[in-house]
Amino acid sequence: MRAVRLHGYHQPPVVEQVPEPTVKDPLDVVVRIGGAGVCRTDLHIIDGQWAAAMNVALPYTIGHENAGWVHEVGSAVTNVAVGDTVILHPTPTCGLCRACRAGQDMHCIRSAFPGLDRDGGMAELLLTSARACVKLAPSTRPRDVAALADAGITAYHAVRKAIPLLYPGTSCVVIGAGGLGHIGIQCLRALTATTVVVVDHNPDALDLASALGAHHTVLADSDTVGTLGPAVAAVTDLTGGGAEVVLDFVAEQGAENAGFAMTRPGGSYFVIGYGGTLTIPTLDVISTERNIIGNIVGTYNELAELMELAHAGLVTLHTKAYPLDAAPQALHDLEIGLVRGRAILVP
Amino acid sequence: MRAVRLHGYHQPPVVEQVPEPTVKDPLDVVVRIGGAGVCRTDLHIIDGQWAAAMNVALPYTIGHENAGWVHEVGSAVTNVAVGDTVILHPTPTCGLCRACRAGQDMHCIRSAFPGLDRDGGMAELLLTSARACVKLAPSTRPRDVAALADAGITAYHAVRKAIPLLYPGTSCVVIGAGGLGHIGIQCLRALTATTVVVVDHNPDALDLASALGAHHTVLADSDTVGTLGPAVAAVTDLTGGGAEVVLDFVAEQGAENAGFAMTRPGGSYFVIGYGGTLTIPTLDVISTERNIIGNIVGTYNELAELMELAHAGLVTLHTKAYPLDAAPQALHDLEIGLVRGRAILVP
Amino acid sequence: MRAVRLHGYHQPPVVEQVPEPTVKDPLDVVVRIGGAGVCRTDLHIIDGQWAAAMNVALPYTIGHENAGWVHEVGSAVTNVAVGDTVILHPTPTCGLCRACRAGQDMHCIRSAFPGLDRDGGMAELLLTSARACVKLAPSTRPRDVAALADAGITAYHAVRKAIPLLYPGTSCVVIGAGGLGHIGIQCLRALTATTVVVVDHNPDALDLASALGAHHTVLADSDTVGTLGPAVAAVTDLTGGGAEVVLDFVAEQGAENAGFAMTRPGGSYFVIGYGGTLTIPTLDVISTERNIIGNIVGTYNELAELMELAHAGLVTLHTKAYPLDAAPQALHDLEIGLVRGRAILVP
Amino acid sequence: MRAVRLHGYHQPPVVEQVPEPTVKDPLDVVVRIGGAGVCRTDLHIIDGQWAAAMNVALPYTIGHENAGWVHEVGSAVTNVAVGDTVILHPTPTCGLCRACRAGQDMHCIRSAFPGLDRDGGMAELLLTSARACVKLAPSTRPRDVAALADAGITAYHAVRKAIPLLYPGTSCVVIGAGGLGHIGIQCLRALTATTVVVVDHNPDALDLASALGAHHTVLADSDTVGTLGPAVAAVTDLTGGGAEVVLDFVAEQGAENAGFAMTRPGGSYFVIGYGGTLTIPTLDVISTERNIIGNIVGTYNELAELMELAHAGLVTLHTKAYPLDAAPQALHDLEIGLVRGRAILVP
Repeated sequence: MRAVRLHGYHQPPVVEQVPEPTVKDPLDVVVRIGGAGVCRTDLHIIDGQWAAAMNVALPYTIGHENAGWVHEVGSAVTNVAVGDTVILHPTPTCGLCRACRAGQDMHCIRSAFPGLDRDGGMAELLLTSARACVKLAPSTRPRDVAALADAGITAYHAVRKAIPLLYPGTSCVVIGAGGLGHIGIQCLRALTATTVVVVDHNPDALDLASALGAHHTVLADSDTVGTLGPAVAAVTDLTGGGAEVVLDFVAEQGAENAGFAMTRPGGSYFVIGYGGTLTIPTLDVISTERNIIGNIVGTYNELAELMELAHAGLVTLHTKAYPLDAAPQALHDLEIGLVRGRAILVP
Repeated sequence: MRAVRLHGYHQPPVVEQVPEPTVKDPLDVVVRIGGAGVCRTDLHIIDGQWAAAMNVALPYTIGHENAGWVHEVGSAVTNVAVGDTVILHPTPTCGLCRACRAGQDMHCIRSAFPGLDRDGGMAELLLTSARACVKLAPSTRPRDVAALADAGITAYHAVRKAIPLLYPGTSCVVIGAGGLGHIGIQCLRALTATTVVVVDHNPDALDLASALGAHHTVLADSDTVGTLGPAVAAVTDLTGGGAEVVLDFVAEQGAENAGFAMTRPGGSYFVIGYGGTLTIPTLDVISTERNIIGNIVGTYNELAELMELAHAGLVTLHTKAYPLDAAPQALHDLEIGLVRGRAILVP
Repeated sequence: MRAVRLHGYHQPPVVEQVPEPTVKDPLDVVVRIGGAGVCRTDLHIIDGQWAAAMNVALPYTIGHENAGWVHEVGSAVTNVAVGDTVILHPTPTCGLCRACRAGQDMHCIRSAFPGLDRDGGMAELLLTSARACVKLAPSTRPRDVAALADAGITAYHAVRKAIPLLYPGTSCVVIGAGGLGHIGIQCLRALTATTVVVVDHNPDALDLASALGAHHTVLADSDTVGTLGPAVAAVTDLTGGGAEVVLDFVAEQGAENAGFAMTRPGGSYFVIGYGGTLTIPTLDVISTERNIIGNIVGTYNELAELMELAHAGLVTLHTKAYPLDAAPQALHDLEIGLVRGRAILVP
Repeated sequence: MRAVRLHGYHQPPVVEQVPEPTVKDPLDVVVRIGGAGVCRTDLHIIDGQWAAAMNVALPYTIGHENAGWVHEVGSAVTNVAVGDTVILHPTPTCGLCRACRAGQDMHCIRSAFPGLDRDGGMAELLLTSARACVKLAPSTRPRDVAALADAGITAYHAVRKAIPLLYPGTSCVVIGAGGLGHIGIQCLRALTATTVVVVDHNPDALDLASALGAHHTVLADSDTVGTLGPAVAAVTDLTGGGAEVVLDFVAEQGAENAGFAMTRPGGSYFVIGYGGTLTIPTLDVISTERNIIGNIVGTYNELAELMELAHAGLVTLHTKAYPLDAAPQALHDLEIGLVRGRAILVP
C-alpha cells in the first residue's frame, strides 16, 4: 500500500509503497483510511521537535487524525465489525490501568500514539485497536469528520471541562479561531449560553468566528505580539473585568501570559495550545484565586459525544481535500498559511 | 482603649490609646478581642508591601486574625448576641453581590479587610460585621482558636478543595509545615486517607509534621533552595512518579517551580503561599494535563466547619501568648524566627 | 392601594383597598408591582391546601410571582435604588444562616414567602427585601418577565442541576409542557445538546413544545392516566431503554411512577411537580442505581442567570394579561383551563 | 475440583467434583480461590428469588465474593501474572461499552456475574477476567479480605458518593451495622469527619458499631418495625432535625421509609439494602428538596481504593472461616443468625 513516510528530520516525507499492516493481537483492528487530517503537529514532527520524546525509528508513517472503514479485526473485538465506518481516538489504550478504568484515556500508562510513536494514518491502511474505534452511522464520509479525531476532540474536551463554569451571564474568551478554535466556538454555542469573545490576529479567522456564532471579536494587532496589551484591555472592557474562562488554543508568542491576564478573579485559564512559557507571580495566582488548567486531547467517550454534535449539525468542519499522493503539497500549504480550516488527505 | 498602631512603614507599630469603636450600620458588630494572631503578613504590612494595594491612611490598627466576645450589635443583627463567643472571618462581606450569594466570600466585590484596609484586631475592641461572626461554644477560649481565623481557614480551604482528588491510594505533598502547613496536615488526616508527604528545610517542622500524622517527611537542603532538585527527586521516588496533589504553603524561593515538578500527570498544584514566580512552559502543562490552582483564605462556612474540627479535637494549634502591650516584641520574635507555631496577643 | 385579598378558604379572593406597605427594617424594599403571575398554587391556597403549612392569618394578599419597580428602600440597601426595574425571588432570606452563606436560598432557616405566609404581590405595592431583588435592564417590562420569578426559576433550577448528566447523545424527558415545562424545554435547548422528549396529554401543549425545540413528543392518552403504560413504552422506545434524565413537572396522577419508569439505568428522575405518591420497590432503585432528585424553586443567582437567558431571547414566555381588578376572572380562567401560558395581573 | 453446586431451588447446595475451568478467551483468568464469602444473597439465590432475573441453568456453582491467586491467564492479559494474589471485582466487564469507558463498571451492558449467572467462586478454581482482578500485596491472605469483594465494595461505593455531602458539622446515619454496615462505618471514619449515628435492632451490632467509631447508636425496638417511629424521633433529636445523609443498608421492613424520614431538608437518602417499598408523597420530596440515591456494588477502581484502606489498617473485617466442604453448614449458620461478621469458605 501507499504511505506518507518520514525518512529524516528536516526533510519532506515521501509517498511510497509499504507492506500492509495485519492484525496480530486479539483487540487489533486494521482500518482502511477514508480521511487523514494534516495537523501542525505533523510539521513539528518533521522539524524533529518530537524526536526525543517519541523516540521512533525512521522511516515511519505519520498521521494521527484518522477516520475510515474497518478492514480486519482481532479475535476479541466485539464493538466493531468489518465494514463499519469509524473515527479513531488518537491513542489506543490498555484498558486495564487505573486511568483507563476511570475513563481517563489520555493518562493510560501503556498507550500508543500512531503517527507519533509508530506508523500512523497517512496511508491506505492503519493498524489500531478496538479501543480506539468509535462507530459512526454508515452514511458518514470519513473525510468529512477525520479532523474531529484530534483537533475536534481536543477542543471539545476543554469546552466540556469548562461547562460548569459557564453559566448564563459569564463570558468565555477563545484565543485563536483556527483548526481547534473554530470547533471550540461551535461547542461553546451548542453547550452553553455564555458570551463568546474571540481573539485572533487574522481578520479572516474572526470573520469565520462571527459566522459560527461568536458574540464579540477582538483583532490582536500582530505588532503587539508578546504583550498583547491592547487585546487584554479590549477583553477586560468587553467582559467587565475579565472572563470567567479563557480557552487558549495558541499558548505561545505571548498569548499564554495575555490569556491569564484576561481571566477574571476566581476564573480559569485553560491551556490547550503550547509553545510559550508562563511567567506568573504566585501572588497573582492567590490574590485573585485564579486557576491554570491543563488540557490534552480528550477521552474516548468525549470523541463519541462530539460525533453526536457533528451528526446533529451542531459542529461542522471547514476542510480542503488532497489526494494521498499530494501529502507533501498539503504539508507545504499548511506551512505557508494557504489552508483554510483543515487539510484532509484522501487515499 | 489600647491598640497596636502603625504610624509609618518600616518602623515598629506602637501600643497607644485610641477611641473605642461603636456600632453604626445595622449589621455592625463590635467584638471584645480575646486573642489576635500575629501573622507574617503583619511584617509585610510594616514593610510597606501592601501599601499600594490597600491604600490605607496611617496611623491605623493592624491585626486580621481575631476571636473574642460580642460587645455590641447593630439593629439588624440576628445571628449573634452580646456576650457570645465568636471567631471572625477576616473579610466582612456585603451579602448582596453574586459572589456572596454563591457563598464565595473571598470574591465579594464590596468586602473590607480589617487589619489591612482599616482598623484591625490588635486592640481591645474591633468593629466588624455580623457577616464575619462565627458563634462558638461559650467555653471556647478565643486565644486558643484565634489563629484559625486566617492561617487555619486558608489551610482548610485548600484541603477541602483537594478532597475529591485525594482518594485512597493517592499522595499529597505539603510544602512548608509552619503556621498554615501544620494545620493543613491535620485537615488532610481528618478528612482523607491519602498518604501525606511533608517537605520543609527545618528539621523541627518535620518533627512536628510527623507528630501530627505525616506519613513521610523530606528535608529540603537549604543549599539547594532555588532548584530543590533533591527534594523533587525524593518526592517523585516516594510517590511513584509524583503526587496527585501538592499543597504549596511557601510558593517562593523556588518552592513554586519545585512544587509543580512534584505533581504527577493529571495532578494539581495548589498555590497557597506567595512571593515567587512560576516559570512553566505551556508544553509541560498540556503534555501531562496538570493544573495550577489558586487559593485565597476561605469561605465563612469553611471557617465554621474548621471550628467543628477544632471542637472535635481533630485540629489543634501550637501557640505562644503575649500580652497586647508586648505586640512589638511578638512581631520581633516572629521576624527572627523565635516563634514556634503562632504568636497570639491577649489584650 | 388595591390588593387581591383572601378572606376565607374555598371562596374567591376580592380586590379591595388596603394600606400601603412601608419600609421598616434596614434591608426592606417596597416594590411597585408591574406584573403578578397567576399560579396553580394560588388555586391550591384558595382551596386551603396550604393553610396548615403556612398558618397565615386571613385576610391577606396572595401572589408570589412578581416583578416591578423599586418604590422605597431601607437604610442598608445597596444593591438596588428607587426606580430600578426588578424581578423578585420568591423567598426573602436572612442572609446569615449556613444555607444562605452557601447560596442555597431555598433552605434558609428564616425565610419568608410573600403570597403564602404573608401579604404577596397581587397588589399595587409589595413589601419584600433587598435580598429578593434582581435588578433588570431599565427597558424590561415587568409584566413580560414576572412569570420567570416562580415558574421560570423552578424550571431553570432543575435543568441546571441536570446539565452535567445531559452530555451529547443523552435524552431528557420533560413530563408536562405547561407553565413550567415550556420554560424547561427552552432552558434545555439553550444549555445542552440533549435530545428532548416531551410527554403531555394535551396536543396543544405538544405543539408548543415542538415549536420551542422539542425533538420528539409523546401524547399521553388520558384514558391511561394512572399507568401511563403506553407513554412509558413510547419513551423507552424513543430513547433506546429510557432517558438519562426525566424532569417531571407534573408528579401526580400516575406521572410520578411513570416518570421513574422512563428513567434509564444509572439515570435520574427529577421531581418538580407534586401531588402524587411514589411507590417504588427499593430493589428497583438499587438494581439499576437510579436516583430520585428533589427540586424546589431555585437560588437567587439562578434567577439572575435565567434573566440573562431571557434578555438574550433564549427563553420567552407565553402570557395573557389581565388588569388587577380582573384577578378573580384570571383565577377562574386558569381553573377551567382557558389560560395558554401564564396569566399575568397588571395593576 | 470440588465446588458448591446448586441442583435445585429450595434445597441446599452440595459439594461435589466438577471439571476444572480453563482459559478460553484472551482476557480470561482462572483464579485459585483462597476465600469465598457467604452472603445473604446466596440464601436468596437458593430460595429462587434470582431465578427469573438471572436465568441460569442448574446445576451451577454459587459464590460471588472471592479472592485468591492467579492460576492461569489468557494471551492478552497484562495486568496480572500466574501466582499473583488477587481480589475479584464481582462483575467481569466488556471494557468497550460507554459505561466501561466511563469507569462505571456496574453499568456495563455486557457484564457477567459469576455466582449469579454462571459458575461462581465457592470452588477450588474460578474462571473470571483480567478486568475483574485487583492485584494485592503478595503477603495478603485472600481469606482475610474476600468479604471486601462484594460487601466491602458496596459499602465503600455508597460512602464515597456521599463524601462531598459530609463536611465537618454534618451527621450521617447508618441503618444496619451488619456485614456491609460495619464496613461503611469504618469508611466514614477514615474518609470524613462527619458525626456517625448508627441504627440497628441488635444490641451486639451497636456495640460493634461503637467499637468501630460510631459517635451515637440508636436501638431500634423490633416491636416498632414498620414504623420505626421512635428511632426516627431519636435520630431527629440527635441530629438537630435530620441527617444530611442516611445510608440505608437494610431498606426493607420499614427501614426504607424511616430512613427517608431521618433525612434533613436538602439531604440525601442512600438506598443500599433492598426488599422494601418506598411510599413517599412527591410533595415530601419537593418541599424539602431531598434526594433518594440508588447504589449498586461499585467500580473496579473503588475496590482497589478499598484495598488501600484495608492495607493501611483503616478497614478490618470480622470473619469466621469454614472449610469448603462445610459450605452447607455456613449457609445454615448464616440463615439462623449464628454468624458474627462474615462467613468465609476456605478451599
